[in-house]
Amino acid sequence: MIIDSHGHVTTPETLYSYKANLLAHRGAHGRGRVGASDDDIRAAVIDEVNPAFGMSHMAHLDEAGIDLQVISPRPFHMMHSEEPAKIVQWYIEENNDLIHRCCELFPDRFVAMCGLPQSPTTDPTDWIPEMRRCVEELGFVGVLLNSDPTEGQGPPPPPMGDRYWYPVYEALCELGVPALIHSAGCRPPAREDYSLHFIIEETISVASLLKSSVRHDFPELKLIVSHAGGAIPYQIGRFISNASREPNSEPYLERMRSLYFDTCLYTQDAIELLIKTVGADRCLFGSEKPGTGSTRNPDNGRWWDDVKLLIEDIDWLDDSDRKMIFEDTARTLFRLDERAPQAVANRG
Amino acid sequence: MIIDSHGHVTTPETLYSYKANLLAHRGAHGRGRVGASDDDIRAAVIDEVNPAFGMSHMAHLDEAGIDLQVISPRPFHMMHSEEPAKIVQWYIEENNDLIHRCCELFPDRFVAMCGLPQSPTTDPTDWIPEMRRCVEELGFVGVLLNSDPTEGQGPPPPPMGDRYWYPVYEALCELGVPALIHSAGCRPPAREDYSLHFIIEETISVASLLKSSVRHDFPELKLIVSHAGGAIPYQIGRFISNASREPNSEPYLERMRSLYFDTCLYTQDAIELLIKTVGADRCLFGSEKPGTGSTRNPDNGRWWDDVKLLIEDIDWLDDSDRKMIFEDTARTLFRLDERAPQAVANRG
Repeated sequence: MIIDSHGHVTTPETLYSYKANLLAHRGAHGRGRVGASDDDIRAAVIDEVNPAFGMSHMAHLDEAGIDLQVISPRPFHMMHSEEPAKIVQWYIEENNDLIHRCCELFPDRFVAMCGLPQSPTTDPTDWIPEMRRCVEELGFVGVLLNSDPTEGQGPPPPPMGDRYWYPVYEALCELGVPALIHSAGCRPPAREDYSLHFIIEETISVASLLKSSVRHDFPELKLIVSHAGGAIPYQIGRFISNASREPNSEPYLERMRSLYFDTCLYTQDAIELLIKTVGADRCLFGSEKPGTGSTRNPDNGRWWDDVKLLIEDIDWLDDSDRKMIFEDTARTLFRLDERAPQAVANRG
Repeated sequence: MIIDSHGHVTTPETLYSYKANLLAHRGAHGRGRVGASDDDIRAAVIDEVNPAFGMSHMAHLDEAGIDLQVISPRPFHMMHSEEPAKIVQWYIEENNDLIHRCCELFPDRFVAMCGLPQSPTTDPTDWIPEMRRCVEELGFVGVLLNSDPTEGQGPPPPPMGDRYWYPVYEALCELGVPALIHSAGCRPPAREDYSLHFIIEETISVASLLKSSVRHDFPELKLIVSHAGGAIPYQIGRFISNASREPNSEPYLERMRSLYFDTCLYTQDAIELLIKTVGADRCLFGSEKPGTGSTRNPDNGRWWDDVKLLIEDIDWLDDSDRKMIFEDTARTLFRLDERAPQAVANRG
């Protein structure tokens, strides 16, 4: 069974007209609702073709052989930095509700990961009720966590090794769900676009977490780092060396294994580097399909984000490693047999 | 011949007491000078052992078989963000003068790369006279260029693809010297330490440069990216895919080859990824020795920053590729046969 741990929902466009309205009235018109029928939601997934992605969401999953995808809000649209915070709250709630409905309509293809109503003007404890609603009431299996709700406007909150984040980690442990670290939008004065901001935020988050005592303070915490850990696996040597200078230092490669990493890279060499660095048992298949990588490689006609083919091409991985990456670790982390039995029933 | 394109000078400690004084009096006591005899400079290189590095600078070069090293100011000490800007100017000038003296004392082991008096409160045109002094009067062969003189305090200047940087690029082309992109210190509100800030700044710089028209506007410009390009070679797939969506887009891997990259990574897998991504002819041997990687790998006793051994261990590189990386490209870019004939005379 092929489980994609890193996907983002494709919704009817009414979600984005709802968002545009919120940004125009800034709360003056009240909360409102996204109007979308079940047919609209089905059509968005099955029929609608975003020109940037070439074919529909479901066509991408089918062609790539992805049986089940964990879907969260589309990050660059999350608008965590917009004010007042209540419009973020409303938008995220609507987004999570649409994800829930999408998963109910395709119970054997999607499971749900919620966004949080993160804002630079609210406290992490304020984000927990929505996490609780999604997990306890709606059956969500994971949480998308943005390390920079200022979206590049700064000054950002402390990095993820700081106690600032502990209310979130406590709630994740209590609810027994993993978080996928993934930033959202990015705006000036940051000099990078949102896509590069992802990479930078993951880099800072990993470095901060592994310098901190989070892994000891929350031994049950499961954090997955998007896009294969930003720069860290490639730059691992300098972290290993620096860490060895600390008194009684835990080796950096062992620290790395306190985290999980998705395989959301689009070249085989890079995926090999990731797996060699952290171990196959710390990697979860992730493609973010359809998304950034949904263009075709002119050399071989493959989609860049057909990460399954890239992993299958790694000749030194054995079948049990591949099964861990494609299925077992995700199934365990997201507790799919317990939380989404319909999604894993009758599958390989 | 083994040329290390990425090294930083080891100076007598008087440079740092001079710096501490500047930071205390902020210019009130006047410019002053660093007191250091030739014997002090020799001793700093040959005898002094920084406990973080385990043995002296020269011992590191000798043990690693580095014949010649390009040395620039120690970046984390450059204090580009301190005010008033004149104390930065004075400190950088003193630093460059010490580098020059060090190269004159060891003409067959070191060639000089200058720092610039960069400051968030001065204009790039203000940095050119010191560049000109170093290259034209003192025979420096390259320039260290910091993409973030705010040192993490922000808001930073525009990224390196912006016309803001054009006066620097014009001067580099006119003087015929390459620049090594390398940030300096890092302070709050940034959440990363200076070492991680290097990686982030390189990542942002490469992305910005390759989105811009700099390579077309300055076809003669030679930019070397420190630490093997930050995150970009590892994350190359998303850049390739995104770039292919631009109309009439130049393929991203071709754009990458408008830049040069040092091999300043401390694991073989990562160096292999770099060389495969950009080509051996775009890589310059760099170790930053002694520095971050100057601790020993307990598994094999090697220094982590013995990058020469790592490159020698890559079995698919042929001798001409290795010679390009170790010698030829640096010799050409820095014009060593013309500018530092004593450094390349009588060598392999």
